[in-house]
Amino acid sequence: MEFVIKPIDITSGKNEVILNEEDATKMGLKNGDRLKIRQLDSISTVGMVETTKTIVNEGEIGIYKDLLEKFAFELSTGVEVTAVGRPESFYHIKEKMKGEKLTKDKIYSIVADAVAGNLSNLELAAFILAEEFVGLDMEEVGYLTKAMAETGQMIDFEETVYDKHSIGGVPGNKVTLLIVPIIASAGLLIPKTSSRAITSPAGTADTFEVLAEVSFSIDELKELAKKVRGTIAWGGALNLAPSDDIFIHRVEHGLGIDPLPQMMASIYSKKLATGVDFLVLDIPTLTRYYERGAKVGSVDEASTLARQFVELSDRIEIKTEAAITYGGQPVGHAIGPALEAREALQALEGLRSSASLIEKSCALAGVLIEMSGKATKGQGKQLAEEILNSGKALSKMKEIIEAQGGNPAVKSQDVAVGNYKAELYSSCDGYIVRVDNSQIVKICNAAGTPRDKGAGILLHAKVGYKVKEGDLLLEIYSNSESRLSKAHAIALKNNPIVCEGMLIERISDLT
Amino acid sequence: MEFVIKPIDITSGKNEVILNEEDATKMGLKNGDRLKIRQLDSISTVGMVETTKTIVNEGEIGIYKDLLEKFAFELSTGVEVTAVGRPESFYHIKEKMKGEKLTKDKIYSIVADAVAGNLSNLELAAFILAEEFVGLDMEEVGYLTKAMAETGQMIDFEETVYDKHSIGGVPGNKVTLLIVPIIASAGLLIPKTSSRAITSPAGTADTFEVLAEVSFSIDELKELAKKVRGTIAWGGALNLAPSDDIFIHRVEHGLGIDPLPQMMASIYSKKLATGVDFLVLDIPTLTRYYERGAKVGSVDEASTLARQFVELSDRIEIKTEAAITYGGQPVGHAIGPALEAREALQALEGLRSSASLIEKSCALAGVLIEMSGKATKGQGKQLAEEILNSGKALSKMKEIIEAQGGNPAVKSQDVAVGNYKAELYSSCDGYIVRVDNSQIVKICNAAGTPRDKGAGILLHAKVGYKVKEGDLLLEIYSNSESRLSKAHAIALKNNPIVCEGMLIERISDLT
Repeated sequence: MEFVIKPIDITSGKNEVILNEEDATKMGLKNGDRLKIRQLDSISTVGMVETTKTIVNEGEIGIYKDLLEKFAFELSTGVEVTAVGRPESFYHIKEKMKGEKLTKDKIYSIVADAVAGNLSNLELAAFILAEEFVGLDMEEVGYLTKAMAETGQMIDFEETVYDKHSIGGVPGNKVTLLIVPIIASAGLLIPKTSSRAITSPAGTADTFEVLAEVSFSIDELKELAKKVRGTIAWGGALNLAPSDDIFIHRVEHGLGIDPLPQMMASIYSKKLATGVDFLVLDIPTLTRYYERGAKVGSVDEASTLARQFVELSDRIEIKTEAAITYGGQPVGHAIGPALEAREALQALEGLRSSASLIEKSCALAGVLIEMSGKATKGQGKQLAEEILNSGKALSKMKEIIEAQGGNPAVKSQDVAVGNYKAELYSSCDGYIVRVDNSQIVKICNAAGTPRDKGAGILLHAKVGYKVKEGDLLLEIYSNSESRLSKAHAIALKNNPIVCEGMLIERISDLT
Repeated sequence: MEFVIKPIDITSGKNEVILNEEDATKMGLKNGDRLKIRQLDSISTVGMVETTKTIVNEGEIGIYKDLLEKFAFELSTGVEVTAVGRPESFYHIKEKMKGEKLTKDKIYSIVADAVAGNLSNLELAAFILAEEFVGLDMEEVGYLTKAMAETGQMIDFEETVYDKHSIGGVPGNKVTLLIVPIIASAGLLIPKTSSRAITSPAGTADTFEVLAEVSFSIDELKELAKKVRGTIAWGGALNLAPSDDIFIHRVEHGLGIDPLPQMMASIYSKKLATGVDFLVLDIPTLTRYYERGAKVGSVDEASTLARQFVELSDRIEIKTEAAITYGGQPVGHAIGPALEAREALQALEGLRSSASLIEKSCALAGVLIEMSGKATKGQGKQLAEEILNSGKALSKMKEIIEAQGGNPAVKSQDVAVGNYKAELYSSCDGYIVRVDNSQIVKICNAAGTPRDKGAGILLHAKVGYKVKEGDLLLEIYSNSESRLSKAHAIALKNNPIVCEGMLIERISDLT
């Protein structure tokens, strides 16, 4: 049947469509039944039926704002609406739930239907939970990865592409801002696309946006890569592996889960989509039982994970070296977009900066340089340090900033951080034994990260530092006085930095 | 914050609420965040945020029609809206996902939050899928069952309650219409509440509604039980174990699953809520590999299941006897509400009726009679047959029909069935080897069951019947000519009744 679109100004985050009850009855449809909606030959999606007596008239179909925009429906043109059953891919999800191994075609059909809107959130959840509970073998993960890449845009940079990826979890990990200019200075192509923060204080795209633009089209990205050999762009607008966003936003966030097969496919589908040939994979790892807040809890676990990543990357013909890195406390001293951008610039400028930041960045860049053959095994890190110390990496960073529409004359001291500041002091004499990633993230987010780019934390003490009672442990920044005071209260209450010898409890007649 | 309700005339089947974007920003809320909505002290639920620029003004909260009705909000009174985090019960669902055993309190919190609308569909799905993949042990199932009962209405009939329940799956299973009057005639109290069909051609409530009213309040039901000792009522309006409907409609239907722990808790929570003391549990079972359409595939499987049901019922202090019954073809000859009501009346009237219907009904009624002590072991079925043959069960049925507002003078020949009829004939000489439950259901539903009460199938041949080419195999009834022709086409194509000796394929020069 032919319907006229009635736009419904509600952002629903779902793929429901609304019919008048009369039309629904005529078509024999109940709430939750599935409709295929087509416009001309170019646009097609599937929505689940909701009904109304008044909001949508007979002959109209109500489409929510976000769905209208996502599929770019023309309001002036009618749509052809037909009742459809569950897609075949649903039955493949059920096969996986029963423990069966899925073929390439079945996995492709699930991913394609996810992208086309043919699977309900519930059906998507069943797939993700089947991955969690039943699992996928590596052959299946390979197909999933390829299907996720091939159902979106694929970029061909027409030469060998190098890339760095961190599985995340550790705050302050701004190493990309050093690695990209180092690698590009070494003459290698590193067209890095990064994400924005979702629950962390700063994604690389949020951080670099302090210094330059990060949103580009695919053609612009190719142009930039050709011109300056390195980019730090936001990957979100490029339609790379679009099913990833669907799985994440419709299921994984809602349940706070990220099954390993999906995590691997998520990372590598975007690498396939951007034509990556060589990848260094950063796996931040906890090394002591009392550390918290990285995704991987021990070196053993990290090794197992690393082997799985390498096995997957072999299957899809990407050369990966996994690097297990120390994730027990933040990388460097700054956490939050502007604070991190400033710290990265300081490191490039050769100013006093964090040893851990420089050490980690050069180590990872060194791995890529060795993979390229530009340094022999064991010599890559030294070459990376030379590039950094020579000022070449800084010049390259300025080129990238300029190419991406920023001010190449920017200096670290120019970077504006939050207007308001609070401080946390040591209550004991002793040594710092823990900087708690989880609490650092909580305080930063309370202060306004990632939306408030000036918000965040500057650490004045890290593990192993000797402190006296009254020493400054950290500063909290924010552009909002009320958010700052909330963040400060959390910091005072939760001891994000733990000093050995700290008073645990006082008991006296007075209590 | 205080908001004014704006009713949104959309039946959405979900618990979303709509805020103006300005209000959402002010409150720091994003799409999908959770709001607690309270009105006075009596009404409280939780909704997930959707946003709009125009449909809801600042200071208003849009609530969808079904949610408004479900919680009976007053439009003239404001609501207090506060942002809330995930409920604690979500973390218990995650514990179950990780394989942990849940305590009584944790299970109760999950069920209570499901009923209160505090868990999203995704979170409910995670719980149901964790039941499917991780499982619950019998102690957990016991807590789940009690929690599901105690979060709804509990009825106390103030004497010993007998009941019969079928786990379902086999069409034509109208035995309740014989068992209730037989048991009530024996002087036992059997206040049976039944469901309507969801995917089957006729639920017991649909069938009995052909003869009398089935919707009653709890007080009316107690009154009826006191007066005539047996009822055949619809349980849906009584708010018995309301979480069951939530799990079924929000998750299980959408995924076509019914995990065993949930199936057991679903059945027994309603028995607890209606104060059942003695239960005969009918487990229709396939006995041959080529049979289809019952829930249980073999007698071994049925025995395992029966032992689990008995173990659960011991824990919750209901005395159960499980009866494994033949489910390889429909019970009796009639399928569809009116056709089944007519067949049940014929059996009560002592007219020519189905041996399988009478045999099964008396066997199950006999189990209950033996449990009550009114007959010794092995004598119950005979007593049930005597009650049926004496006409006492028919008199009791008339009493029940009259008490439930129907016409007690109704005779089987008065029952109106569909106006239109199609017939299916045998294409071979031989014996019937299969009556396919699944195809029978498909044809009935195409003909209009369960909404068209006159629709359905009357079988003229069952397994073991000798037939000749051209013999009548079945009649299809419908009140719609077009639905009838669709149903007939399905019947012609799919061979619901299979005759041995049937021609499978003809190959000749002509093809």
